[in-house]
Order: sequence, then C-alpha cells, then structure tokens
Amino acid sequence: MTIPEPLEILIEELSKLPGIGKKTAQRLALFLLRSDENYISRLSDSILSLKTKIRQCSICFNITTTEICDICSSPKRDRSIICVVEDISDIIAVERTNEYNGLYHVLGGVLSPLTGRDVDSIRIKELEERIKNGNFKEIILALNPDTEGETTSLYIAKLFKESNLKITRIARGLPVGGNLEFADEATIGRAVLNRVTIQ
Amino acid sequence: MTIPEPLEILIEELSKLPGIGKKTAQRLALFLLRSDENYISRLSDSILSLKTKIRQCSICFNITTTEICDICSSPKRDRSIICVVEDISDIIAVERTNEYNGLYHVLGGVLSPLTGRDVDSIRIKELEERIKNGNFKEIILALNPDTEGETTSLYIAKLFKESNLKITRIARGLPVGGNLEFADEATIGRAVLNRVTIQ
Repeated sequence: MTIPEPLEILIEELSKLPGIGKKTAQRLALFLLRSDENYISRLSDSILSLKTKIRQCSICFNITTTEICDICSSPKRDRSIICVVEDISDIIAVERTNEYNGLYHVLGGVLSPLTGRDVDSIRIKELEERIKNGNFKEIILALNPDTEGETTSLYIAKLFKESNLKITRIARGLPVGGNLEFADEATIGRAVLNRVTIQ
Repeated sequence: MTIPEPLEILIEELSKLPGIGKKTAQRLALFLLRSDENYISRLSDSILSLKTKIRQCSICFNITTTEICDICSSPKRDRSIICVVEDISDIIAVERTNEYNGLYHVLGGVLSPLTGRDVDSIRIKELEERIKNGNFKEIILALNPDTEGETTSLYIAKLFKESNLKITRIARGLPVGGNLEFADEATIGRAVLNRVTIQ
C-alpha cells in the first residue's frame, strides 16, 4: 500500500518542523485527518495569517501587528534601559518574568564563525543607531550563556566601552529549584564569584 | 508585552495537536514565523487538502483518494484473508513489514466500557457484512495487546465461532532486538507458551 499522496505530502511538510520526525509527523497528519473541518480550517488560516498580519517592529525588531510594537509604543516602559536579545522568543521569556520594564533590541542572531554569522548579518548597526539617537543609561545583554552568546556580549560591550552607558549582562548561577550536587563546575564557579550580600 | 494575536491564535491551535504542549507550540509557531512564504503556503494547503482530497474506502475504511482504496482494488492481494485493525495507522504499520498480502478491515476503535465505545460505535456490523458476502478463509485479529484490544479480539472471535473461518491473532512475544532480562513477566510468559519449533 502506498500512503495517499495528499497525506504523504502533509507528512513531508510537517517533518520539516523543528523537533518533528517522520513518525511524529505521521501521527500529527493522521490526527488532522480525523479532526473536524472547523479545526482544520482554523489551523490552516492561522498559519497563513502569520505572514500577512505579523510584521517586525521598525524600532526594536520585535513582532507586532502594527508599525511599532506595543513595548516600544507603551508610555509605561522605561526608555533609559535597553535589553539586547538574540531572538523574539527571548523577549517572550523575559516579559513572562514581569521583572523588566525597559525596551528591547532583537539582534536576530549571534556572532558565530562556524555558521558564518558576522557583525553585518546581525542587527548591531541598528543597535548603535538606536543608542546614538536615544537617551539610554544602561544596556542589558541577555544573550544565551554559550560561546557564541558570550562572544557577542563581549563584542557589544567593547563597542560601547567609550560611552557613558552602564553595560550589564544577566546573571549566571544556579537555576531556581536547582541542585548544587548536580550543577556543573562552571555554573557553580560563576555562582560563587557573583555571590550576593544578604541584606 | 502581549504576544500578537495572530501568533497567539496559532500557538493555541497548534497546542491542540497530540503530544504538542504550549512550549513546543510556541517554538513551532516562531519557526513558522521565520519560514519563507513558500513553505507556509505549502503547509497550509496540504492541511486543507486532507479533507477535500482524502476519503474512506467504502469497503475496508482505509484512506484513499478514490472510491475504493488501492489494497481493495489490487488484483495482487489475497482475497481469502482479512486483517482486522483498530486504525489506519495500523494498516501503514503492517504494510511496512511486507509480510502480509491480504485485505484489511478498519474498526475505527476498540470496545471500551470506560470511554463508552460499544459494538455499535465501531465497525463490527460492517465486518460481519463483509464476511457474509466475501469468500474469506481466515480472519487475523491485529489489535493492540492491551485490555481493550484483547476484549475486542475475543468478542470478534466469538462472533465467528460457528463459521468455518480460521480465526488467528498476531503473536505476542519478545520484540525483535529485545532483551529477556528487561521484558515483563506477561510478555515472557506468552513467549514461552507460544514457543515455536525450530525446523
């Protein structure tokens, strides 16, 4: 038996999604086959409407349905702090904490010689422009604590060394709910170095 | 920040898929946001075309793009054996083995008092009809080796007890590549009971 072509095509397309292998794609496709028509058309519409309805904020490159995103246009946000992140998903993650009330800047990547990402292929020039024209007092570097993230953080920190900006990066240490015994040496080392006085 | 509505809706719809939680749905949605328009429209089209292009075989309830599926209409298949399965995915699994050349019958479920599935809500009547009008010599029951599957197998076996049909069920035993040490007692027990003479 050959799987009917429309199903085969859907399995093929679904298995291009991240973390979705051939078997999961088949399970999803068969689930969709059994789903009611309403759900099918809602799902297909919502996928299509991504490209037509969502665009990039022209200031911070966050996603938005309007010209400027609701963070950049909000009068309640602190316009003296800018948080540099790699990707939109990082904004969602930081926003979920309710601990930050400043602006953002989405780099759209990090420096990586291996994948050929250099200074011109991520939005560093746009960041310089914003810093020059804005009234910022602090840059928070919220990049992933890996080699590429560290390299990019150091590059940006060096770039603004001569300015009067305070340049910080988010803390490394034990994750909340974590366990000293199972943490790696690098993390514990950083946690000891960056220890905080208990008031 | 609130996530833009079109993205929020897509995350909501994606998280209704089996095995896809809120976090995975968000990752998939952000991946789709970054994908090129070609892929987006191909994916959305292939989801929509499921309902318009695929239908059920009017004989065995397999999926097909024509009135009768290519297994039921193939002159090469053995029309004296019928393999009863729970779902279309089971046909795909059995076909993949290249060990079976008969026909199929998709029940569309198994008897389950817990979920309220009784004899009338799965395709047992249709199976009886086929057996009556066909020229079958053997029914293979290929249902899952769990309580519901066993119950359904026993029910069907009893139903055709008076007929001259040979009624078999697929073997239980150690999975190929499995390990005696880690197999459960029930499986090893079945494997011993159903031991096969080495020729």
